[in-house]
Amino acid sequence: MFEAAELGRKVPKETYKRRAPKVRQQLLALQQQLRAAPFPAILIFQGVDAAGKSESVNLLNAWMDPRWIVTRAFGDPSDEERERPEHWRFWRELPARGRLGLYLSSWYSRPVLDRVYRRTSRVEFEHQLARIAELEKMLADDGALILKFWMHLDKQTQRKRLRALEKDPLTRWRVTKLQWKHWKLYGRFIAAAEQAIRVTSTPQAPWTIVEGRDEEYRTLAVAETLRDAVRARLSGEAARADRAAGKAASGEPSVAGASGPTILSGLDMTQRVDKDAFERELLKKQGELNRLQRRASARGVSTILVFEGWDAAGKGGAIRRVTAALDARDYQVIPIAAPTDEELAHHYLWRFWRHLPRAGRVTIFDRSWYGRVLVERVEGFAPPADWRRAFTEINQFEDQLIAHGIVLVKYWLHVTPDEQLRRFKERRQSPLKNWKITGEDWRNRKRWPAYEHAVNEMVERTSTHDAPWTLVEGNDKYYARIKVLQTLCDRLRRGL
Amino acid sequence: MFEAAELGRKVPKETYKRRAPKVRQQLLALQQQLRAAPFPAILIFQGVDAAGKSESVNLLNAWMDPRWIVTRAFGDPSDEERERPEHWRFWRELPARGRLGLYLSSWYSRPVLDRVYRRTSRVEFEHQLARIAELEKMLADDGALILKFWMHLDKQTQRKRLRALEKDPLTRWRVTKLQWKHWKLYGRFIAAAEQAIRVTSTPQAPWTIVEGRDEEYRTLAVAETLRDAVRARLSGEAARADRAAGKAASGEPSVAGASGPTILSGLDMTQRVDKDAFERELLKKQGELNRLQRRASARGVSTILVFEGWDAAGKGGAIRRVTAALDARDYQVIPIAAPTDEELAHHYLWRFWRHLPRAGRVTIFDRSWYGRVLVERVEGFAPPADWRRAFTEINQFEDQLIAHGIVLVKYWLHVTPDEQLRRFKERRQSPLKNWKITGEDWRNRKRWPAYEHAVNEMVERTSTHDAPWTLVEGNDKYYARIKVLQTLCDRLRRGL
Repeated sequence: MFEAAELGRKVPKETYKRRAPKVRQQLLALQQQLRAAPFPAILIFQGVDAAGKSESVNLLNAWMDPRWIVTRAFGDPSDEERERPEHWRFWRELPARGRLGLYLSSWYSRPVLDRVYRRTSRVEFEHQLARIAELEKMLADDGALILKFWMHLDKQTQRKRLRALEKDPLTRWRVTKLQWKHWKLYGRFIAAAEQAIRVTSTPQAPWTIVEGRDEEYRTLAVAETLRDAVRARLSGEAARADRAAGKAASGEPSVAGASGPTILSGLDMTQRVDKDAFERELLKKQGELNRLQRRASARGVSTILVFEGWDAAGKGGAIRRVTAALDARDYQVIPIAAPTDEELAHHYLWRFWRHLPRAGRVTIFDRSWYGRVLVERVEGFAPPADWRRAFTEINQFEDQLIAHGIVLVKYWLHVTPDEQLRRFKERRQSPLKNWKITGEDWRNRKRWPAYEHAVNEMVERTSTHDAPWTLVEGNDKYYARIKVLQTLCDRLRRGL
Repeated sequence: MFEAAELGRKVPKETYKRRAPKVRQQLLALQQQLRAAPFPAILIFQGVDAAGKSESVNLLNAWMDPRWIVTRAFGDPSDEERERPEHWRFWRELPARGRLGLYLSSWYSRPVLDRVYRRTSRVEFEHQLARIAELEKMLADDGALILKFWMHLDKQTQRKRLRALEKDPLTRWRVTKLQWKHWKLYGRFIAAAEQAIRVTSTPQAPWTIVEGRDEEYRTLAVAETLRDAVRARLSGEAARADRAAGKAASGEPSVAGASGPTILSGLDMTQRVDKDAFERELLKKQGELNRLQRRASARGVSTILVFEGWDAAGKGGAIRRVTAALDARDYQVIPIAAPTDEELAHHYLWRFWRHLPRAGRVTIFDRSWYGRVLVERVEGFAPPADWRRAFTEINQFEDQLIAHGIVLVKYWLHVTPDEQLRRFKERRQSPLKNWKITGEDWRNRKRWPAYEHAVNEMVERTSTHDAPWTLVEGNDKYYARIKVLQTLCDRLRRGL
């Protein structure tokens, strides 16, 4: 989920100098319009310590007219607060219509920290998150514009940032033992945050994950996201449509939109395995997989593999190297093409539910439910409201698989555009592979940036602790196949 | 919640003979239209044993064309089913678009029974209900029309019904030891059902509670509710708008609508207490209340009293008899009139959150958040979507109060229209009470049936195990005041 916020996104100084004054002016003007609007805007800032939460709040206060902004941070509850239900203190401080409320450490902070310190069970935590979702739904149904920012840093960057703060006499006070204690629990913190974001990310109250490393990037990401959302709302448009398309209602796209680097652009595509090493490794991994699957079968542990990727990225070849290691009675490959009439007559997830494996079996989906947020999104087969809702639906679906003990492994097979072109040409010329390439492949290729953006958002929203995406660098087929097998063995071993 | 389904509603034979063939024809015609519609209809039948669940399903199959109906009952899961996540078996059996799916013992049965037999904790049960809500939201978002019927019988009637079934050689097989075991756990079953209905009753997938006692009534209630919902949906109208108004899109109102008896019409309004007994009892109860409140204060247990009722039903007098027993430092009376500007600028629940008592204190709301589903509904101040959503919002709000340990006591002070008229006239003539009566009171009086219907639905949807409504027969003020005090003492004692 946080992969897309660890890409080292930056905004060059010149860009910042050009764009910052502009967005500042726009925000000021929008704030004036908001004052007369029949709804409040509620902004929530959560995230890793030192990732720029309070800086963002200070900046918005400096850029806009602070008289119409309510800024609140919630520490330990007071006696007064403890004597009322948990949410009482938040209700007290909600902004009135026309106002902007900025919340540092909001209703998320205590549930997340209680979970990090294991003061609450997983089920209790889920219950608290459900309460939060109810609260946000209530406010959104009443008209509130809700934006939630998760300011993110990877663990090493956070350490560096905390150290830098400690060295500066002006900021030393910000780093106490507590911050270092939290830092040591980074893994738990991220796991709890991921769950919170997954459960509470709704079209009415979406999370925006912001990479906190570069101050200029972070500033523009928050300010432009706010600008686009308020503007779209005031002009009666669907705010998220614009943000998803990476475009403001007019003018320049926001830095957090489609323009920046993606998860895919960060992959090292030069990785290779030579033929001898491949053949050796292949046998070894297949043997390992066979042994693991026999144990899984005996224990009734089911496995589901999802293969997504570019056309000609090598999905078929990778799948064959997996199935070669399995007993034919144990697995099923389900190729997902256009839905049948019967499938169209049901909810889109219905056809995947149908194929869930029995205990101890393996089901391999060659393309999957992710089509909803890839091809259906990019080609416009699903209207925006449908594919946006699908992130939540898919997470709920996968949660049920995982809760049932199923091992779920998801691969994105990646190739560069050049390599794809080479393979397309090779296919066209080979009488044996000619059938594999159609006009559609060439058409899809033209929409590469739109697909890349969709893949990025898909990984950001659906890569979870228990069902992470494995991005496979596929320019070299040998490397890709070994990585697929290796990942599967690792995940199975952990699942047993 | 089930009070409105224990009124002994009946449909006279002649009415049934006239209406049944009509609704049957209408359903047949609608089924034909539904076949071409881009959505399925999913009907769920749950409820008390012997309340007519399977009879209703059989009847719909007999009245309509069974080729386009999928009927399913789910017993213990098979091996095949146990090997997949819980919801797999339901997904398999979902109706295709254009079809009608009737589910006897659906996704609710196991969670409710597991809770009745204490195989799951309260939190686990809530988690399962949240999963169900997710499933239904997914299906509804995809277009499905979802109707859920809870077929209800009170405990004594259920026993009679089971005995009658046992006596008849043709139906004897239907009553086994299991049914009697369930009957003994009636209280637990109802508590679990109430929670399930509360959590999963949404505008997209509403529950209809049907009194199962009279076969004709039950039959028409189910058939007409289905007819109205399908018709409204096919004609693009909001189905629930019609049902709430108690009218079909055209023609006769459904029997489950506004026409029948209400919870209020079942009250024994002749109850009286004479003056001497009143004065004796008043002192006794007030003394008791004072002692209980001192204990509550010492233990930090807060109390919230809600007074709703007709104009001139005696809310003020009853409140004064309560406060006379309390230490002035311990209580606050919050009269709820039209909201202030500041209150209007927030969510409608905001002004009630503000006034939640500190630990050990008492807050008395003279009118309350229920205005949303009473005056705002009847007078049209809140659009239908808003007041309908309010039932859920109010239940969520009260859940938080109760989870925090607050004792919540809700009164509806009832008088008959005649008695109200007598009091209005008396007020008009008394120089001391003249100010109490305004043109608004006379106007409200004209809308008595609409208000009565709204009160009925309010009690049906928000009277819960932990926060039940107390209906106070108020034609005799002495009787009413003693009942108010008595109830408060009982609730406080239980809460300590």
